[in-house]
Amino acid sequence: MSNSFVLKGCIAFSDSSKSIVTFNKGYVVSVDGVCQGAFPDLPERYNNLPLVDYGNKLIIPGMTDLHVHAPQYTFRGIGMDKELLDWLNIYTFPEEAKYSDMDYATKAYTYFSEDLRRCFTTRAVVFATIHNDATIELMNQLEKTGVITYVGKVNMDRNGGKNLEEENAQTSLQATIQWLDEIEGKYKNTKPIITPRFIPSCSDELMKGLGALSKERGLRIQSHLSENKSEIAWVQELVPQSSCYANAYEMFDAMGSKEYPTIMAHCVYSDRLEMQILKKHGVFIAHCADSNMNLTSGIAPVRRFLDLGINVGLGTDVSAGSSLNMVKTMLITLQASKMYYRLVDTDVKPLTFEEVFYLATEGGGKYFGKVGSFKAGYDFDAVVIDDSKMFSMRDMSVRERIERMCYNDADAIIKDKYVQGNRIFTKIE
Amino acid sequence: MSNSFVLKGCIAFSDSSKSIVTFNKGYVVSVDGVCQGAFPDLPERYNNLPLVDYGNKLIIPGMTDLHVHAPQYTFRGIGMDKELLDWLNIYTFPEEAKYSDMDYATKAYTYFSEDLRRCFTTRAVVFATIHNDATIELMNQLEKTGVITYVGKVNMDRNGGKNLEEENAQTSLQATIQWLDEIEGKYKNTKPIITPRFIPSCSDELMKGLGALSKERGLRIQSHLSENKSEIAWVQELVPQSSCYANAYEMFDAMGSKEYPTIMAHCVYSDRLEMQILKKHGVFIAHCADSNMNLTSGIAPVRRFLDLGINVGLGTDVSAGSSLNMVKTMLITLQASKMYYRLVDTDVKPLTFEEVFYLATEGGGKYFGKVGSFKAGYDFDAVVIDDSKMFSMRDMSVRERIERMCYNDADAIIKDKYVQGNRIFTKIE
Repeated sequence: MSNSFVLKGCIAFSDSSKSIVTFNKGYVVSVDGVCQGAFPDLPERYNNLPLVDYGNKLIIPGMTDLHVHAPQYTFRGIGMDKELLDWLNIYTFPEEAKYSDMDYATKAYTYFSEDLRRCFTTRAVVFATIHNDATIELMNQLEKTGVITYVGKVNMDRNGGKNLEEENAQTSLQATIQWLDEIEGKYKNTKPIITPRFIPSCSDELMKGLGALSKERGLRIQSHLSENKSEIAWVQELVPQSSCYANAYEMFDAMGSKEYPTIMAHCVYSDRLEMQILKKHGVFIAHCADSNMNLTSGIAPVRRFLDLGINVGLGTDVSAGSSLNMVKTMLITLQASKMYYRLVDTDVKPLTFEEVFYLATEGGGKYFGKVGSFKAGYDFDAVVIDDSKMFSMRDMSVRERIERMCYNDADAIIKDKYVQGNRIFTKIE
Repeated sequence: MSNSFVLKGCIAFSDSSKSIVTFNKGYVVSVDGVCQGAFPDLPERYNNLPLVDYGNKLIIPGMTDLHVHAPQYTFRGIGMDKELLDWLNIYTFPEEAKYSDMDYATKAYTYFSEDLRRCFTTRAVVFATIHNDATIELMNQLEKTGVITYVGKVNMDRNGGKNLEEENAQTSLQATIQWLDEIEGKYKNTKPIITPRFIPSCSDELMKGLGALSKERGLRIQSHLSENKSEIAWVQELVPQSSCYANAYEMFDAMGSKEYPTIMAHCVYSDRLEMQILKKHGVFIAHCADSNMNLTSGIAPVRRFLDLGINVGLGTDVSAGSSLNMVKTMLITLQASKMYYRLVDTDVKPLTFEEVFYLATEGGGKYFGKVGSFKAGYDFDAVVIDDSKMFSMRDMSVRERIERMCYNDADAIIKDKYVQGNRIFTKIE
């Protein structure tokens, strides 16, 4: 199948953060992997393209998982009674240390990559571990899935505990350069991203070196910000001259720019000052509601980010988030936002379904360019969904069906998945 | 298959609200539908019973859904942007009014009953609608599933809106008596329960009549309590002489007794005074975290209920809760409890996984007697689960596997389900 075609089905996509366009038995067109738009009736000029009729199935844009830790997928759903710093030390760091063993890494990443291929995600920004070889193995595997990703070899030269600490800033930087050189030009779908774990894991010297490296090579950065109060207090001790956690990253030149935006996961406790810093640099916030509830971190004020015009997408944050399923993440995002309104601040209205659908598709997709919608000129990333397991007593609108799907992810079966017009997954009936 | 047998597999059950007993490749024994206990090695005296070897599959007690609205299953996952009173008027009441049409009711309840048969639930306490015929149709269907239930014809003589209001207290009471007479002695698994929707739906006269009827016939009562602040304020207006919402029910003799315990769903805003009333009467609280988040109601202080020795179980509250899946409800219960601790009151520690597993099994099961555990003398209700879709890189303990299942409900496949030793569901491979 070429990547020029027409899909017919029940289509839904965001045309802004506040509204969803739907066509019942409508058409969406890909030419050379670029979306030409969606239509209630097929424009004559596309009559010669091959057409796949998906009948009553839903067709929505692919979703972007803006924050996911591949090596943690092995222990998803375990140890969720801990808060962040204990959880890292007891579960996460010992598990990540195992990825020095290439047999282990190869097998574990095979499961992760295969499950990523099968879920709603068409784009992802991924943490690996500190290990170059395992990171390259992960990139090799992800490249084959067809999902488009950024992948980071993680940097940690302090506080990693046994077998998960690089010797010092210099060896960590050298390893990073080696990794970058080794993968140079190797992949079509898989890009490197500079990945200081978070400030407690990286000395000032390492942070500065990574900031400089990202500028020198025109590479983006991803990290974690203001997830948990104990973590924030620790950062204030570690970088006493910073005015806030975000400012600490800023001092090390790690906040990126509009051209090379940094992703910061969480931002649960970002205040006005921190939000201004995020906005100034064009940072993308990866909002990880599932993770933030599981680790008892709290709830990020997403409505405030949006009102300020800060870029926001959603992250599963596997395995503090327990599932790669972005649709389940949407549900938890909605519930978290309602509880923020009810329990924290009634001035911060809950996110609407429209807004959460936008965040899962175009909000995060924007990090990759024109991605996450069926507007003309966007990359053709799409997921085709069979929701017939959820019976209905009447004709439901497409809008109702996608809301119902969000609340019943287990009954939404992915039939086909396309990235840039390439079908990368199809369900065997 | 008789209901005397041995099951072999990876067994987990609560022996108290704080601890889970597990046996990897252990045995659990049913004799005439009564559990004889679970064992690491099979006691010789059971050697002559037929044995089903489930290999590496999980075997856990069946779960009790203490609060679910059968007629609302048709619109699960839709309209979740509303709060309680709007949601009732815009979505719920118009939908429930449709159950005056028996064709509609028969078809809708077929879907509900079939999905209930297939989920983790072995016991349920169910709201129907105000309609006698449709309620009896629901009971007929539920009886066939093998799930053991209480089902209530709903009483509403005010504020139901178009086509969902009984004429007055007398006609509502008469209809209830008619319904009770008609089903007398008809079912083995399906019991009636008196079901005033909530105080705003029932006049003082109706409430008093239902209280008296429950005493007269030795029937239990279920209703809603302190779910939403606007609802609570409304009840205070409607019953101005009450000291709190629970006291209003008490005044109408609707709070039951230890022998005939009332179920009150929600109790999100129950304060110390209200908790004392609940405890005094031996009320079961149906905690519905999914619903309470979806309708932006808030989070109930479950830890406080448990500390006071109040009975608590979990309810899906379909369709303010969107799924019949009790395992998903467990996850949301954990997340809600963590957010209550983090955002409302750090004196109220989050529920542990052990506690939530207990609530889903024995906590709610207690409402039905000795139900919800594999202790000797308990009814033999069990669910056999294939969790092999969730790969593992090492041998996981049974305790780890049931926690992982809770966070990944979509990947936990029910293989078989038993109620009182009868296999009522088996998955066709």
